Amino acid sequence: MAGNSFGTIYRLTTFGESHGEAIGGIIDGCPAGLTINIEFIQAELDRRKPGQSQIVTQRKESDKVMFLSGIFNDKTIGTPIGFMIKNENQRSHDYSHNIDAYRPSHADYTYDEKYGERDYRGGGRSSARETTCRVVAGAIAKLILKQYNITIHAYTSQVGEIKLLKKYQELDFSKIDSSIVRCPDNLVSETMIQKIEQVRKAGDTIGGAISCVIQSMPAGLGEPVFDKLHADLGKAMLSINAVKGFEYGSGFDGSKMLGSEHNDTFEFTDKIKTKSNYSGGIQGGISNGEDIYFRVAFKPVATIMQVQKTINSKGEPVEMHGKGRHDPCVLPRAVPIVESMAAIVIVDHLLRSRSSKL
Amino acid sequence: MAGNSFGTIYRLTTFGESHGEAIGGIIDGCPAGLTINIEFIQAELDRRKPGQSQIVTQRKESDKVMFLSGIFNDKTIGTPIGFMIKNENQRSHDYSHNIDAYRPSHADYTYDEKYGERDYRGGGRSSARETTCRVVAGAIAKLILKQYNITIHAYTSQVGEIKLLKKYQELDFSKIDSSIVRCPDNLVSETMIQKIEQVRKAGDTIGGAISCVIQSMPAGLGEPVFDKLHADLGKAMLSINAVKGFEYGSGFDGSKMLGSEHNDTFEFTDKIKTKSNYSGGIQGGISNGEDIYFRVAFKPVATIMQVQKTINSKGEPVEMHGKGRHDPCVLPRAVPIVESMAAIVIVDHLLRSRSSKL
Amino acid sequence: MAGNSFGTIYRLTTFGESHGEAIGGIIDGCPAGLTINIEFIQAELDRRKPGQSQIVTQRKESDKVMFLSGIFNDKTIGTPIGFMIKNENQRSHDYSHNIDAYRPSHADYTYDEKYGERDYRGGGRSSARETTCRVVAGAIAKLILKQYNITIHAYTSQVGEIKLLKKYQELDFSKIDSSIVRCPDNLVSETMIQKIEQVRKAGDTIGGAISCVIQSMPAGLGEPVFDKLHADLGKAMLSINAVKGFEYGSGFDGSKMLGSEHNDTFEFTDKIKTKSNYSGGIQGGISNGEDIYFRVAFKPVATIMQVQKTINSKGEPVEMHGKGRHDPCVLPRAVPIVESMAAIVIVDHLLRSRSSKL
Amino acid sequence: MAGNSFGTIYRLTTFGESHGEAIGGIIDGCPAGLTINIEFIQAELDRRKPGQSQIVTQRKESDKVMFLSGIFNDKTIGTPIGFMIKNENQRSHDYSHNIDAYRPSHADYTYDEKYGERDYRGGGRSSARETTCRVVAGAIAKLILKQYNITIHAYTSQVGEIKLLKKYQELDFSKIDSSIVRCPDNLVSETMIQKIEQVRKAGDTIGGAISCVIQSMPAGLGEPVFDKLHADLGKAMLSINAVKGFEYGSGFDGSKMLGSEHNDTFEFTDKIKTKSNYSGGIQGGISNGEDIYFRVAFKPVATIMQVQKTINSKGEPVEMHGKGRHDPCVLPRAVPIVESMAAIVIVDHLLRSRSSKL
Repeated sequence: MAGNSFGTIYRLTTFGESHGEAIGGIIDGCPAGLTINIEFIQAELDRRKPGQSQIVTQRKESDKVMFLSGIFNDKTIGTPIGFMIKNENQRSHDYSHNIDAYRPSHADYTYDEKYGERDYRGGGRSSARETTCRVVAGAIAKLILKQYNITIHAYTSQVGEIKLLKKYQELDFSKIDSSIVRCPDNLVSETMIQKIEQVRKAGDTIGGAISCVIQSMPAGLGEPVFDKLHADLGKAMLSINAVKGFEYGSGFDGSKMLGSEHNDTFEFTDKIKTKSNYSGGIQGGISNGEDIYFRVAFKPVATIMQVQKTINSKGEPVEMHGKGRHDPCVLPRAVPIVESMAAIVIVDHLLRSRSSKL
Repeated sequence: MAGNSFGTIYRLTTFGESHGEAIGGIIDGCPAGLTINIEFIQAELDRRKPGQSQIVTQRKESDKVMFLSGIFNDKTIGTPIGFMIKNENQRSHDYSHNIDAYRPSHADYTYDEKYGERDYRGGGRSSARETTCRVVAGAIAKLILKQYNITIHAYTSQVGEIKLLKKYQELDFSKIDSSIVRCPDNLVSETMIQKIEQVRKAGDTIGGAISCVIQSMPAGLGEPVFDKLHADLGKAMLSINAVKGFEYGSGFDGSKMLGSEHNDTFEFTDKIKTKSNYSGGIQGGISNGEDIYFRVAFKPVATIMQVQKTINSKGEPVEMHGKGRHDPCVLPRAVPIVESMAAIVIVDHLLRSRSSKL
Repeated sequence: MAGNSFGTIYRLTTFGESHGEAIGGIIDGCPAGLTINIEFIQAELDRRKPGQSQIVTQRKESDKVMFLSGIFNDKTIGTPIGFMIKNENQRSHDYSHNIDAYRPSHADYTYDEKYGERDYRGGGRSSARETTCRVVAGAIAKLILKQYNITIHAYTSQVGEIKLLKKYQELDFSKIDSSIVRCPDNLVSETMIQKIEQVRKAGDTIGGAISCVIQSMPAGLGEPVFDKLHADLGKAMLSINAVKGFEYGSGFDGSKMLGSEHNDTFEFTDKIKTKSNYSGGIQGGISNGEDIYFRVAFKPVATIMQVQKTINSKGEPVEMHGKGRHDPCVLPRAVPIVESMAAIVIVDHLLRSRSSKL
Repeated sequence: MAGNSFGTIYRLTTFGESHGEAIGGIIDGCPAGLTINIEFIQAELDRRKPGQSQIVTQRKESDKVMFLSGIFNDKTIGTPIGFMIKNENQRSHDYSHNIDAYRPSHADYTYDEKYGERDYRGGGRSSARETTCRVVAGAIAKLILKQYNITIHAYTSQVGEIKLLKKYQELDFSKIDSSIVRCPDNLVSETMIQKIEQVRKAGDTIGGAISCVIQSMPAGLGEPVFDKLHADLGKAMLSINAVKGFEYGSGFDGSKMLGSEHNDTFEFTDKIKTKSNYSGGIQGGISNGEDIYFRVAFKPVATIMQVQKTINSKGEPVEMHGKGRHDPCVLPRAVPIVESMAAIVIVDHLLRSRSSKL
């Protein structure tokens, strides 16, 4: 109801402000008997961590996750998994100048309107720091998906005007993490990095897009009508900070096509397949066993290192001077977040599908 | 859980297959004391009805809604509103040839995989006929929004390659319904209609996009983190049949911009406002009082009047011959559905926001 | 949220006032592939129907259920099951005298306080007529339970001061329905019937209790902490009109015992069992495979055929004269309702338990 | 879904095993602007704490709650309140003998059946230690209720066969906490304490009952049909460890009465009231402004200091020797838990009622 939970059976609830004591969450509904590989989870967190390269924020946060319950002798026991990550790098004094200024395209004003009370230190609850918790739940979801051989790969496919034009079938996913911008094509990756560096030096920020591919999907996942698989994936992505758009399969380009071009005809080779896959692996809201692929648009980060005019809560004009250590482009660090949210959705629907038949 | 409900406080649950006895639903959580204008609800249904013009399906369905509960002396009484619409035009014999063929880009195969059992007559549960129920719940939601002076206008902004390039501020929303394709610009409307006619004659179908604008919004609606206002709007739209993408505010174009261009600076005139509105009226997932606007991509209808190759459930190749009376383009009839889903989301968040403060 | 839904995976949502057009509901989450025996469902409804004997209300309602969706060729197809029962015996003129009087121990006053608007004809939404819908969903749940050999038997174990002292193990459940008061012991049944007749002739009503036994339960159903199996059973029972109390296993008597008396020691014969069963088949909120048994207390019906003093909405004193055809004792007709709610809870937890393990 | 959350708008989700790192929870939906009195919350926890008197367990746990989010400058800010209580007194070696024995009337066997994996140290997730988290959420709920002048008082009204016969109207609630058994009548309190001492010395345990009274209730809380106010209170109580029964208003005794005796007639003095209150302040599932009162039955604690026969997971007979420091009677420490769960239910329905009317 208050919007801090996601999922139905596999369900994550998170808490925490950027400058409070800690952030954390509870994963309820994780089936018992899963071996928890803490190193893998921490490695996923490290993919999202600040300071991992020169094109992301240089804040220092170790982002070490502490598990408090639900795991015994390295296995899940069916009870809720409580976890916590301390806020080490609070530096509240950095934010004193913001107490009463409404930063442009931030959530200061809307939180004030909604709640009347607000933690003005940093982004508070609206900070992308909250997504750390999603990566924890997503990493555990990935461990479940491994049991089903389902894989999820996201990568940066656009930075500003620079687009990766290759289709995902032409890419080598194993190269994603060797690029600091997380684009698996060496050449495009290099151009993107240069662009971000240039933007950063200008005290500015830049948007982009992330593509994601889910492979080895079983058919039959997704609930018809309101909880279509792509509707839940879309909501998952749109709930990530800075996301402005979502498209799957043929997406917005598909809207320009004719039915005779767009239809995916079925054929039988060793199993039922479709020749093309404009449907993006989902038909009628339910997975058909083909690859699921989708694209997520991110706006440029709102915090820029330039002087901006704005007002305070009394409506008086004030000037903002960009301070602190911020991301010139969220894309590199958002890649594991996109994968995590996708993993949570797929695991949730895997469990939901257990009740489809008698 | 099984995906047939939408909303949290204002909550719609629907039932019905295209060729069963009836479709219908229950609206739970509609506040007491609302005067119900049945004529308005029926008029909204008529905007979605088949046969309303030469560019939509010529099926005949009266789509008369019967209210069964929750309304007394023309007012809501706080109890669930049950309603029903009979399926008059079932013509099951039309579909006998489909018993065992998997229609390309339809949900026949995925439903079979998910459930094992399937109503093969028409689309069954996957038919867009289900959206009739959404229009009923959306019309009642609009009656609630009228009390708050909030307005919602959707219109066809793209058919195939034909795009309406004007911004919504340059349009006269009162002209939307005088265009049979529901595009408020006369010239573009005409071109779109010609394109659809041409596609229909070729036995083909075509995709497009609908834009939607919500005005006179109060600030403070939307729940942070997972139930961001745009995430719920996005899910609402993606749950509509044939939708492939959703973007709000600057959307996918915003991903090409710099932060210094994209930031919406605050100013105070008679109230707190932003100079630009790339945010699309939502910051941090919460409405800021500016106009909300978004765009929804639709694929071309899968049912075409051409011969298509496919397979049956045994994996044997079969040939499909397009039959029946279908839409060459869903856009004109989808406009009221987009508005309805938007209205349901806004009303739900209006009620949810009543618990934000002590 | 607005309280008209029950269950998580197997989920019933109901609508309807006693004197509106119809009552009905939607069962969402019923697994596909279940053969629906309409005769069985109607027979269950007939066990709840008015006019079935001289000790229940003599109202005439055929209570024929119409299924509108979710069933095809006599099998469930996984989609929501919509159903409806027409209100045939509305006789609104009977209730005109009640427009503005608050009947003692009825919900007239509380509905007025909550909603401001009220359907004053009969009980409106607070009428026990709503429970008809629960019997439909309960009957389908029983069909699912048959696949697991789980049985549910409820019976009248108390009318006023008259108690059936035998334990359930000494009873022949096949005799329940041959008693019009639904007490399987001939002698006690006879005394109960005489008591109800006497009360009815005095224009009065009388309370009582229903006992219920669930047998052949698998171990492992129920969710720890908040959704303990007995907590969900308790809520299910307490949601039935006129219920004042719920106890399971040793119940209130167990509160007088010592731990050394009350503990159920485990033993292994052909399988793991407990020697005694004060736990009532549930330990830590989870079924242990022993019989589940519980008892439900019902108050006397509030509508009596005597003159009563009360007030109207203006606070003015008015006199009520009992009219219409009402139950002197709800117990006989409540037996199938208790069974139905129990069946819904067990099926829901059966489906939920499918996600306990990896 | 997995049963670790309670409430709809004001919603508590808990985590933690008795012998893990910590227990804790997330309170979502607490309105912004509430002043948090930490001393009050800690005082409530101390009422539940082990070691508070000679008739409860002598375990040492400081049960200091740490708030991690949702509170800023002593006020709630509308975001989720994360909190944690460390497990200080784990003493795992005490439990090594239990690794594979199924303790009588404990949840060892049922957890094994449900999950396959189990934390065998102490009660794990089934331990009443989890209720500490409920007291935290209940204390905050009480702070909200203070704004509405609503009060909740629970007290021990029965230990074994010893019953407090006085009605709640004859009691002085301010004396509850000066009795170590939390019975406000000096004489009965003394007898109860002696009984518990005697039972404790015999290495045994004893059951009892707690009564609870909610006063200064507004009319109109509770949702009709499934979420009746007493149904939610009943579920809340039945979810507490060791509870076997719940009755409200006239309860099981009411089932012996005639309608003419049981009906609560309305009268108007300065406001609308009922002369009697057999309804227990709730009619049709909705509060009518009269006092709500109910009674909760607790079984004797399953852990006794005597030798017990049982079996292990292989079905082999084993002998249990009671060890550790356990409660001879849970009643004194359960009083704040009953109040807490009641407070959570009332606050949740207060917030839900904000959407009843337009």
